[in-house]
Amino acid sequence: MHTLNEEKVFKDPVHNYIHVQHSTIWRLINTREFQRLRRIRQLGTSYLTFHGAEHSRFSHSLGVYEITRRIISQFERSGYSDWPSSEKLLALCAALLHDLGHGPFSHSIEEAFHMDHEEWTRRIILGDTEVNEILTEVAVDFPAKVASVIAKDYVNPIVVNLVSSPLDADRMDYLLRDAYYTGVNYGTIDIDRILRMLRPYQGRVVVKESGMHAVEDYLMSRYQMYWQVYFHPVTRSSEIILRQIFRRAKELYTEGYDFGFMVKPLPGLFEDRLTVQDYLQLDEALIQTAFLQWTTEKDAVLSELCCRFMHRKLYKYVEVESVDLEMIDEIRRAFKQAGLNPEYDLEIDFPTDLPYDVFRPGDEASQKQILLLDREERLREISEVSDIVRSISGIHRGKYHLYYPGSKVKDVISSLPDAVSHIFKR
Amino acid sequence: MHTLNEEKVFKDPVHNYIHVQHSTIWRLINTREFQRLRRIRQLGTSYLTFHGAEHSRFSHSLGVYEITRRIISQFERSGYSDWPSSEKLLALCAALLHDLGHGPFSHSIEEAFHMDHEEWTRRIILGDTEVNEILTEVAVDFPAKVASVIAKDYVNPIVVNLVSSPLDADRMDYLLRDAYYTGVNYGTIDIDRILRMLRPYQGRVVVKESGMHAVEDYLMSRYQMYWQVYFHPVTRSSEIILRQIFRRAKELYTEGYDFGFMVKPLPGLFEDRLTVQDYLQLDEALIQTAFLQWTTEKDAVLSELCCRFMHRKLYKYVEVESVDLEMIDEIRRAFKQAGLNPEYDLEIDFPTDLPYDVFRPGDEASQKQILLLDREERLREISEVSDIVRSISGIHRGKYHLYYPGSKVKDVISSLPDAVSHIFKR
Amino acid sequence: MHTLNEEKVFKDPVHNYIHVQHSTIWRLINTREFQRLRRIRQLGTSYLTFHGAEHSRFSHSLGVYEITRRIISQFERSGYSDWPSSEKLLALCAALLHDLGHGPFSHSIEEAFHMDHEEWTRRIILGDTEVNEILTEVAVDFPAKVASVIAKDYVNPIVVNLVSSPLDADRMDYLLRDAYYTGVNYGTIDIDRILRMLRPYQGRVVVKESGMHAVEDYLMSRYQMYWQVYFHPVTRSSEIILRQIFRRAKELYTEGYDFGFMVKPLPGLFEDRLTVQDYLQLDEALIQTAFLQWTTEKDAVLSELCCRFMHRKLYKYVEVESVDLEMIDEIRRAFKQAGLNPEYDLEIDFPTDLPYDVFRPGDEASQKQILLLDREERLREISEVSDIVRSISGIHRGKYHLYYPGSKVKDVISSLPDAVSHIFKR
Amino acid sequence: MHTLNEEKVFKDPVHNYIHVQHSTIWRLINTREFQRLRRIRQLGTSYLTFHGAEHSRFSHSLGVYEITRRIISQFERSGYSDWPSSEKLLALCAALLHDLGHGPFSHSIEEAFHMDHEEWTRRIILGDTEVNEILTEVAVDFPAKVASVIAKDYVNPIVVNLVSSPLDADRMDYLLRDAYYTGVNYGTIDIDRILRMLRPYQGRVVVKESGMHAVEDYLMSRYQMYWQVYFHPVTRSSEIILRQIFRRAKELYTEGYDFGFMVKPLPGLFEDRLTVQDYLQLDEALIQTAFLQWTTEKDAVLSELCCRFMHRKLYKYVEVESVDLEMIDEIRRAFKQAGLNPEYDLEIDFPTDLPYDVFRPGDEASQKQILLLDREERLREISEVSDIVRSISGIHRGKYHLYYPGSKVKDVISSLPDAVSHIFKR
Repeated sequence: MHTLNEEKVFKDPVHNYIHVQHSTIWRLINTREFQRLRRIRQLGTSYLTFHGAEHSRFSHSLGVYEITRRIISQFERSGYSDWPSSEKLLALCAALLHDLGHGPFSHSIEEAFHMDHEEWTRRIILGDTEVNEILTEVAVDFPAKVASVIAKDYVNPIVVNLVSSPLDADRMDYLLRDAYYTGVNYGTIDIDRILRMLRPYQGRVVVKESGMHAVEDYLMSRYQMYWQVYFHPVTRSSEIILRQIFRRAKELYTEGYDFGFMVKPLPGLFEDRLTVQDYLQLDEALIQTAFLQWTTEKDAVLSELCCRFMHRKLYKYVEVESVDLEMIDEIRRAFKQAGLNPEYDLEIDFPTDLPYDVFRPGDEASQKQILLLDREERLREISEVSDIVRSISGIHRGKYHLYYPGSKVKDVISSLPDAVSHIFKR
Repeated sequence: MHTLNEEKVFKDPVHNYIHVQHSTIWRLINTREFQRLRRIRQLGTSYLTFHGAEHSRFSHSLGVYEITRRIISQFERSGYSDWPSSEKLLALCAALLHDLGHGPFSHSIEEAFHMDHEEWTRRIILGDTEVNEILTEVAVDFPAKVASVIAKDYVNPIVVNLVSSPLDADRMDYLLRDAYYTGVNYGTIDIDRILRMLRPYQGRVVVKESGMHAVEDYLMSRYQMYWQVYFHPVTRSSEIILRQIFRRAKELYTEGYDFGFMVKPLPGLFEDRLTVQDYLQLDEALIQTAFLQWTTEKDAVLSELCCRFMHRKLYKYVEVESVDLEMIDEIRRAFKQAGLNPEYDLEIDFPTDLPYDVFRPGDEASQKQILLLDREERLREISEVSDIVRSISGIHRGKYHLYYPGSKVKDVISSLPDAVSHIFKR
Repeated sequence: MHTLNEEKVFKDPVHNYIHVQHSTIWRLINTREFQRLRRIRQLGTSYLTFHGAEHSRFSHSLGVYEITRRIISQFERSGYSDWPSSEKLLALCAALLHDLGHGPFSHSIEEAFHMDHEEWTRRIILGDTEVNEILTEVAVDFPAKVASVIAKDYVNPIVVNLVSSPLDADRMDYLLRDAYYTGVNYGTIDIDRILRMLRPYQGRVVVKESGMHAVEDYLMSRYQMYWQVYFHPVTRSSEIILRQIFRRAKELYTEGYDFGFMVKPLPGLFEDRLTVQDYLQLDEALIQTAFLQWTTEKDAVLSELCCRFMHRKLYKYVEVESVDLEMIDEIRRAFKQAGLNPEYDLEIDFPTDLPYDVFRPGDEASQKQILLLDREERLREISEVSDIVRSISGIHRGKYHLYYPGSKVKDVISSLPDAVSHIFKR
Repeated sequence: MHTLNEEKVFKDPVHNYIHVQHSTIWRLINTREFQRLRRIRQLGTSYLTFHGAEHSRFSHSLGVYEITRRIISQFERSGYSDWPSSEKLLALCAALLHDLGHGPFSHSIEEAFHMDHEEWTRRIILGDTEVNEILTEVAVDFPAKVASVIAKDYVNPIVVNLVSSPLDADRMDYLLRDAYYTGVNYGTIDIDRILRMLRPYQGRVVVKESGMHAVEDYLMSRYQMYWQVYFHPVTRSSEIILRQIFRRAKELYTEGYDFGFMVKPLPGLFEDRLTVQDYLQLDEALIQTAFLQWTTEKDAVLSELCCRFMHRKLYKYVEVESVDLEMIDEIRRAFKQAGLNPEYDLEIDFPTDLPYDVFRPGDEASQKQILLLDREERLREISEVSDIVRSISGIHRGKYHLYYPGSKVKDVISSLPDAVSHIFKR
């Protein structure tokens, strides 16, 4: 593990400075694969709701690395014997690279094309890439080890737990960073205190009991961020349009439609045969460029959707009760009769379908639990001890929403049956 | 002037909330031309130096609008007779739209193609655009008025002065916003105090004398921001590469080179015949997409430059004395003999050539002065009163730098004459 | 209502500036009675736990005034007809003066001497004071009106509700201010949003439904502040010692003990016959001076307690279960037998006995409820609508603690019965 | 050097946490002498100008300790051979205790009674105190060493330089802390970067050249803080009254006046024969208590001055030119003729007479210089390299002000000669 002659730093608004001390980390950051993360936004389409949220997965990945570095540094200073110091570089690399496979507008594109960013992370780390070359210089089996930590099946569970747990560097960085860039103040957590309270213990990272209140505060912040930012209905609206664009473009491509603009690697995406090199060409600049070009496509569905997304003419939404959902077929029929296209002009959405994880203390998988360690070295799951965690963890929030093109529906609303039109008049 | 039924707000990390009270402002924000500013970064290539600086001109424009709104609101509350209240909407629209014509990586593209964003702002406001349509609804001559305020030749000088002066909403927003997103703390100014100290007076916006210290602090912040952020040599390096790419692509286009990737409106850009509709297609997503595609072009110069920019393999730089500059022809010759291409492999840079304005109190144009108004209603230019402003305004900083491809020069350095190689060995 | 020629401002770390526009407010701030609040800490003995918490009730009172001013200003701008604009100055004066009667280390001294700061506020406002003189200049019955608003029996309920409610300016200022000065980050609330969401409605201040999440966040912040700051066991320890000093000094005074240091108005305090002028002499400087002088008193109990308080040698504490409490008489007997003084060497404490109010939504008194107003102008109590509020409001936290002099108990611990010594060995 | 079993922390608004790792430091903090610093404000009377500035020398001393700890920790991590690691505890103790001898309202009381807080620090460290006892446990000569570092004559110059230099922990903490508690934003410096740029070099702490801009920013912040906060004319007004009270009380005491309130150790103060134990009784609570009691003294001069101070009825001030100062005897005569008391009713003030040190790069004493170390290991004084430091260091700011009781002078102004009254009419 080569130490740099002089520590390198990145100025970071969230952590003030990101400190790089090893040449492997420095060189990984300078690979084209890692630099590509500058062109993938951390929060996908959230910038259409919170205009400040333009921050990239590059920034976030540096932040996750930095928090991991601080945790390990604390472990080393405290001299905890349960921390295997030989795994330091492995943990740092896994932290830095854990999001390497994210595609443009990740959640939406994965849903539309049944892709998996974790699989792509693995392929990039193990494939013919600059990242792989640098990792291989550490040891021939080092790329596989890094991939294994990210895949959560590495042989040494504490390394996995450090990188992925309900209180990991990933979650701490995104809470702080997303709060900073959106401007909301829900995500302010006392990270210094939490880091000081962590310790390695029997193959896991646990929290000293005196850190319980800081963890409570972290879980409440997370709760608020999910509902105020991540599941914001305006963001959901833009994600729905995004998915519809992908769906429509693939339909057209499959039908042999002649696109006015088509560029590599989009055909590979539509045909589900992307190579690693193709995948690395995919970024949000390309997606936005394609969409802007497609605003003038002949296909009316595609061009309208692209106009909506690029010029931010999003769908409207109404909150509906489950009783309304029973009417969904009736609504679709009515839309069709009124000349609308129910396949694109109506979407049902329920936020908890999303691939986000609100913390659930009852989760059986112990890797998903937060454990407190008391002075007598007893471990207890946090909701056993904390009233507030027990209280909020029982909450199942989330409402059904219908999304639809506002003016189109307004134009035909008088021709809809009362039971249907009533829903859209609220 | 139609008031909205309910005030609309945007959550903003810098001003906390942006308040929109008039439907004209609301509708302008929702035009496709204004939404396009989301795809133009406020700080151009600075994100390659400060990874957090991904914020857009959309955010900045909202911020300038908000500060202007607060200034006018203070003028109204204070009941200053020198403020023409009938000009409020005009001032707000001009503040909101003043950057509408910025292209992708504005300073570099303007330099490369001799474009002028102010001229494009005018063309968009007066052309066949959604913005023009909304402004025309206010009054037939309203678009022309807005353009005239931005062009600084509007008949009522206080409106011009409010929107463009050394202490205007534009500069206050960018200092605060750029400091926030880069994470540096040089740009923290007491904007509440400055706003409270402004008053309209005889066709100008002046500062009450008791606000002098807050203005001193603002000017010192600005001074630091210029040298720490705006003129950062790493940012300069990326701008040089950007300009070289534009230069090379235009050369090739002019020669009839067959690009592997070429898309509208790039031909118009190279042929200097862009329409307003073309121009609105130009954004940073398109530029980045073209550059990424061009990383595999046959032309070695273009593909190498695009790799450098997209994968952030920037030029190295050395600071040089004026005596070294006298050797520039010798260096060029030596580079050529060593097989390098002096047209692309060597650039001289001097920051104050840039289109940024460090405040110079001696400036004759009174519109560029900051005037203090004392209790006896005497006006004095700030550097007459403030020691610190007088001191810093005399400073002519800025060093010459040579930029060059590091490894290429290193490969041939032993073959260069000593006098030349010596410079690049520092 | 005389408007000042020029708005006056106070620089404030929490609100940035406090704005004073009326000469009555300005003159009230400059009275000796209001200036006395500089010598009463906002958080009593909390500075012994959080060293930054030296802020005064003077600062807090200005903050409460400022928030009230902003709320009313928003009401005026929005043109709400339910706000009686003629009551503005009354509301501002009541907000500014609501804490005027606080004594030194308020909660402890009130408990020790059965005093009531609200009653003293009334007496100061209605007595022969500078404050009374200035209020009387507004109108002869104005002092009585101000007192009545603070006593919550003023005829116009919305003025009362504005000044005292679960979401009033008092609570918002102390959350923000106490978080700022202690340095904890639990108290960060989005006050701008909350203020914007308030509206006067049928004699109450209610919250627009779209402000629900900001209110949730405020209630969670408050919850955390109570448990992390206000009920901190170290602070409780210092309060217990403080009360014991007052108790002992009164005992001694009553017995005719000859104090080495005794100064007006302490005799009046011990004899329960303080005049307003006496009361205004009472401040924390006097209490601290008396205590420091008393560290060398002959009476060993008094001098030890004063040493403990002034040199911060606080009591230790153990958390006990209710089962332990049943043993309290046994513990007292054992302490006595071991030569300790159970009257002073043992105290039971349960935080919710404190005069703080954690929000309880089920509270019958409607003035203690937070009401949400939806678009159909229906009012609903917040816990009906918010899952999170309902969840946290059911929590009855708080543990019993025993406080005791650590080294004294340690010295005799071997002579205590096992069942007793076991408790103090934890 | 005994390491604590578990690191102790103090929550601090400025540094987030203060970390204590050695039992000696922990025990020093818990001495009565160090706890006394809680009752000495860091900024003296500034709280009468900035109401938030109630922070104590206790907080500041912890902050200085913490910054010193971080600097040494960086030295150790970097493995600099010029740092003598055996001096760590000495440096930490000196940093913690450097302000131990400050009296109440330090600058004013020192001026009034010709005292010297550094001398008192020495006496407390070497005297019969808890601090001395703890230091002696480290080594018999350890108290003398600590005193010597604080007195700047310790044999190992780098320890002295670390604790006292133009860029020391003391100055960095007070800039940040005073900015935080007053609420001004002039004092925001990038302390992380400065700390990272420091290194021990040939018996001094120097700055790596790449830290120059951070140091420039620090010096500009300091410049602004001096003029905006430390020399604020309202603060000067309260300090003048404070000194007058001390002067008057001593005059009366010397004349054998019978004070209504007099308490130990005030007689010792007036007779200039304070013991260490007396001195430790002196705190701001005592001074404020005496002053409040003296507001009802028979002596009209004393009681008026005490009313002014305690009820904040401060002197007014006018800025005067040097030409006005030539008239000072004439003004005094005129005041006397008009029945005023020129000894108390008129004071001339010039801020740079104060014991603060604005950085002067030309200072011969090399210990007062900031040295930059470049890559070739050349040392240069910062003003040789930095244009901005050279510019601001030449500024000699500061105006003469006359302070006087506003209403008293107003009452007689018509009877003053025109040349005199003219000055007070501005």
